[in-house]
Amino acid sequence: MGILLMIESFFLLISMLISLIYGGSDLFSFFISMLISASVGFLSYILTLKSKKKLARREAYIICFLVWVIFSLFGSLPFYFSGHIPFYTDAFFETMSGFTTTGASILNDIESLPKGLLFWRSLTQWMGGMGIILMSLAILPILGIGGMQLFIAEVPGPTLDKLHPRIKETAKRLWGIYILFTFLEVIFLMFGGMSLFDSVCHSFTTMATGGYSNYNTSLINVSPYIQSVVIIFMFIAGTNFSLSFFALNGKFNKIWKNEEFRYYFAFTLLFTFVISAVLMQNGKQSLGKSFLDSLFQVVSLMTTTGYATADYLSWGHFPIVICFIVMFFGGSAGSTGGGIKIVRILLILKNSALELKRLIHPSAIIPLRLNKKVVRPEIFTNILAFLVLYILIFVMGTLAMSILGSDLDTAMGATIASLGNIGPGIGDVGPMSNFSEISFVGKWILSLLMLMGRLELFTVLVIFSPYFWKK
Amino acid sequence: MGILLMIESFFLLISMLISLIYGGSDLFSFFISMLISASVGFLSYILTLKSKKKLARREAYIICFLVWVIFSLFGSLPFYFSGHIPFYTDAFFETMSGFTTTGASILNDIESLPKGLLFWRSLTQWMGGMGIILMSLAILPILGIGGMQLFIAEVPGPTLDKLHPRIKETAKRLWGIYILFTFLEVIFLMFGGMSLFDSVCHSFTTMATGGYSNYNTSLINVSPYIQSVVIIFMFIAGTNFSLSFFALNGKFNKIWKNEEFRYYFAFTLLFTFVISAVLMQNGKQSLGKSFLDSLFQVVSLMTTTGYATADYLSWGHFPIVICFIVMFFGGSAGSTGGGIKIVRILLILKNSALELKRLIHPSAIIPLRLNKKVVRPEIFTNILAFLVLYILIFVMGTLAMSILGSDLDTAMGATIASLGNIGPGIGDVGPMSNFSEISFVGKWILSLLMLMGRLELFTVLVIFSPYFWKK
Repeated sequence: MGILLMIESFFLLISMLISLIYGGSDLFSFFISMLISASVGFLSYILTLKSKKKLARREAYIICFLVWVIFSLFGSLPFYFSGHIPFYTDAFFETMSGFTTTGASILNDIESLPKGLLFWRSLTQWMGGMGIILMSLAILPILGIGGMQLFIAEVPGPTLDKLHPRIKETAKRLWGIYILFTFLEVIFLMFGGMSLFDSVCHSFTTMATGGYSNYNTSLINVSPYIQSVVIIFMFIAGTNFSLSFFALNGKFNKIWKNEEFRYYFAFTLLFTFVISAVLMQNGKQSLGKSFLDSLFQVVSLMTTTGYATADYLSWGHFPIVICFIVMFFGGSAGSTGGGIKIVRILLILKNSALELKRLIHPSAIIPLRLNKKVVRPEIFTNILAFLVLYILIFVMGTLAMSILGSDLDTAMGATIASLGNIGPGIGDVGPMSNFSEISFVGKWILSLLMLMGRLELFTVLVIFSPYFWKK
Repeated sequence: MGILLMIESFFLLISMLISLIYGGSDLFSFFISMLISASVGFLSYILTLKSKKKLARREAYIICFLVWVIFSLFGSLPFYFSGHIPFYTDAFFETMSGFTTTGASILNDIESLPKGLLFWRSLTQWMGGMGIILMSLAILPILGIGGMQLFIAEVPGPTLDKLHPRIKETAKRLWGIYILFTFLEVIFLMFGGMSLFDSVCHSFTTMATGGYSNYNTSLINVSPYIQSVVIIFMFIAGTNFSLSFFALNGKFNKIWKNEEFRYYFAFTLLFTFVISAVLMQNGKQSLGKSFLDSLFQVVSLMTTTGYATADYLSWGHFPIVICFIVMFFGGSAGSTGGGIKIVRILLILKNSALELKRLIHPSAIIPLRLNKKVVRPEIFTNILAFLVLYILIFVMGTLAMSILGSDLDTAMGATIASLGNIGPGIGDVGPMSNFSEISFVGKWILSLLMLMGRLELFTVLVIFSPYFWKK
């Protein structure tokens, strides 16, 4: 963890350089933050150098959890020291929202931030998107010990394919694709007239399905070209990165054969068409604008990015309900998206249909299949447990937020926006508002929900379960 | 089905006699309705007398579904013919809401109804509460053929104990307990000064967990004594009737050993205390009134009865969210309550906790238990499928209601109020409003949801699945 903290201070150094180039007022706060992170990291490293125990299952869970918390604790320092976020709770919320790629913000005037802080804000999302520990696995030899356990703790999705038998190679390849797409998006955005700085920041937060924008009104005022580029890269970011790897190797047939991808594609189109139809019927917008707005919002919410090019809360009851439902979907497994994930929803729906078939033919053995292969019962049990826990945490979160004074819509909206790592929700935390009005207690609760969502529940829940601490 | 329709006409005859006694304007409409039901029933019986095929699994599902639909189709005639409900859709909605013990009403002035119709309205709930088919099984020898299949189709709950190896005896005992408790409640209500007529009607709708009241403001204006009596009988109606059977035989230890009952009791107290605390904090009500109001509303919603003695929508955000959550609970399995049922929720929560334990000890075999016995995997799979389908139908219902113009709260409220067989919901269909403003299409959709909820999803869903109609 000491080493990982030194890595964070390295990224703080980069942001400091950005601050230096653009001559911002935040230079000193970066310097202090970096110094603190680096010293604490170095000291921790030195003090624990002698112990070289192999990581057991339990330690892996704890380390993974702590790394994310510590990264947020130290990562919030520049916001706090610079005075741009006067309360530490707010700074922590903003940073946790960054690392978990949620994108929920407490900033009322984003554009007033100096360039260094804007860069750091986007960078937190980019680091968190593909995974802090995955990054460490790719670049550090030392974590090879127990690396697989850490990998599972950070990326517990049901079907993340290992691209290479060695975990280090897999991590390298995933980060390689991630960097490549980020680079491509920068080029495309600049081609549309966006500045280099904004292009880099937005590419960071698109590929991470994070959703932090440098603009106060998110992406409402950018050109349709730029909106379209962002749609495409959000969609890619919400696709299983193994599929992107195959695509880059020319194996396109593997993509269409993937059931999760087909449904991801189909769900996106279905919801887009339905909302477009409603917007057209309202009669206020042209066909093109209706379609683009619908597509952008659906992809943004489905991939849990959270950018906005329109206020879906002004679209009427039916589109709001659809958007709310889409918030539960999440991208594909093995993508940077949050939420429940398409593959889980797909398998659960499939099994429900099969259950009816089983009722009619009680003696027949009717297995659940994905990509024509039988899904093992223990995997499906785990998926169901995930769904149940997800709903349970959603209900608990809604209860907690309502105790703190939010109405039902806002309580549900803030909870799913955090738990699903989306950013905007419904009620008072819609795409045109932010989380600044939430109480401090509420912000800590939502921060925990973000981390639960990012680590896909189990890693965090396991640590909080009494079984974990029993001998 | 012909015979069953003749049974319905017999109950219409009883209502006609009530109308005759009280000299209401609805006498003729009952006469016509009874005549139609009896003739159609008799003709159907005569015409199919020769075929005596044994009932197969599929036919049982269809018969069960059709019986409920046909009972509502004919049962709505008196409302329609009398002119007190001018539109047939409304009359059907009111009747389906009766038979399914939902209690959602479209009547703006209940007290203007003649006594005969009020009696029939309560009687539909009483018949539907313990089950139309169960009643037939108890009194008709002919249904012995395939009776078990019908029994399963109407009462598919996970743990309904058979009280006797013969299905006919079980049905008789269940109906016997049901009649006994209804009779007891009448005595207790009359003791509190309620008229015989109102006592009978309210006992019918309490024991059925139906919730139709003869008063426009439900039970707001009755004495605390009567409210307390109703609480006790609602709670009994939400308890597994097998446990009541044991209690009547003096085996009280069996009750406390029952895990579902213990949690039913604990959940009720927990939610009551929490809401009482909030109401006390609001400072408007005394401790006694706060507790009684909380307890009444929690028991009413948890057992899916739906009576009201206060407007919970005026209690503030947190109590509203709790009430909304309670609506998903439902009574115990084997009770007359609707909803998901405590035992299902209990097992799902238990398994989620065990799943965390399994993550920490991946090689250990950790079975799920209820009442100290291991729950068979196929039963648990069925429970999970039920939960998933319940959520899915809830989402679809909410979507449908929002298409028809309801906001999110109203759409969710109307859906769970119907699907859970509760009656009042949240939003525009709260305890102080009714369903008269819902569109006709909406009323048909909600009627279907009520029936799905009453028959616990599978029976209805199976018929609508394509597998059912394949050879």
